Amino acid sequence: MLKIHGIARSRAFRCIWAAEEAGLPYEVVPLGFAPGFKLERPLAINPNNKIPALEDGDLVLFESLAINLHIAAKAGAPLMPTGDDASRVMQWTLWTGTEVEAHVMRWGYNAYIKPEAERIASEAAAGKEALDLRLAVLERELAQRPYLVGNGFTVADLNLACVLYGPWLNGYDLAPFPKVKAWLDTCLTRPAALRARKLREG
Amino acid sequence: MLKIHGIARSRAFRCIWAAEEAGLPYEVVPLGFAPGFKLERPLAINPNNKIPALEDGDLVLFESLAINLHIAAKAGAPLMPTGDDASRVMQWTLWTGTEVEAHVMRWGYNAYIKPEAERIASEAAAGKEALDLRLAVLERELAQRPYLVGNGFTVADLNLACVLYGPWLNGYDLAPFPKVKAWLDTCLTRPAALRARKLREG
Repeated sequence: MLKIHGIARSRAFRCIWAAEEAGLPYEVVPLGFAPGFKLERPLAINPNNKIPALEDGDLVLFESLAINLHIAAKAGAPLMPTGDDASRVMQWTLWTGTEVEAHVMRWGYNAYIKPEAERIASEAAAGKEALDLRLAVLERELAQRPYLVGNGFTVADLNLACVLYGPWLNGYDLAPFPKVKAWLDTCLTRPAALRARKLREG
Repeated sequence: MLKIHGIARSRAFRCIWAAEEAGLPYEVVPLGFAPGFKLERPLAINPNNKIPALEDGDLVLFESLAINLHIAAKAGAPLMPTGDDASRVMQWTLWTGTEVEAHVMRWGYNAYIKPEAERIASEAAAGKEALDLRLAVLERELAQRPYLVGNGFTVADLNLACVLYGPWLNGYDLAPFPKVKAWLDTCLTRPAALRARKLREG
């Protein structure tokens, strides 16, 4: 049984979605910032003091996107392809972490996450400007194939779509990127995604 | 034959080191910002307009750390371990990309990379403060084992050490982190690392 430490309102959502896609049994060990939960500091489960963390038998992992790679590897193809396509999955997962997520957060914190009085419009704009550059790259890629790797949904799509889920749900202007918008619509309404989103969105 | 597009003065250094560790034949296709080379824009080889990129037959990859995972996977164990240790490699590689590199760059640009007149001391200090927090996590991990994953050098060490190579070489204060310092000394003076460094440091 996979144990996902976190709550669906945190990045643990990503791992819940992955477990749902993999069809693997899992439980969520509630740990987070929702009412009624207190974040234990320091977190014995993660030296970075962050959620999520995954327990899978003796293995304890941090980094949500790496947890998802692990879950996908357990499920095997098609969620985790083999050969060169496995390398392409790593490429897009690293790209998500290094080129996309920081800009998503910069925009998100200042567009809808922080209390309105604390939002800084110029920060939201800077995040959007940087994210738009990456979405333009993605738009060109998705003009060539329906999913990031091969012809079907893989954990590469999951890892990128789960990071773009916040913008997608909270009014980010995707009109200049119709292929990205359609791909996100497809990914984020998959049955497994809907089951994970229900835990988060209620 | 692996084709590494870039120059040793760029992040292509990381992939050169990986190819040297893997013992795989490679060539460097010069593309970069060194005197005598002009960076073609847009870069046909990488939709992100960045170096490095890897060509391995029909496979073209971007993201330096993902390229290294691909090279290590070709070499197999011990550079790329199997099973749960493979997942730990992904964890540390993602951690490098999401928790470490941006702070390394923020410090580096303002400590030694930009012309002196353009450096902003407060930016260097902010980068150092954030990086120190991550190095403290790493210090505790390296108190428990000699390398990041298992008992020997893997691509997880390579991927983190290649990102910390700039600070290590350029006067970052590692005195509070003696285990990190010793581990970097070991990684960055491996024969394969020295061969790659020679191409960069001259």
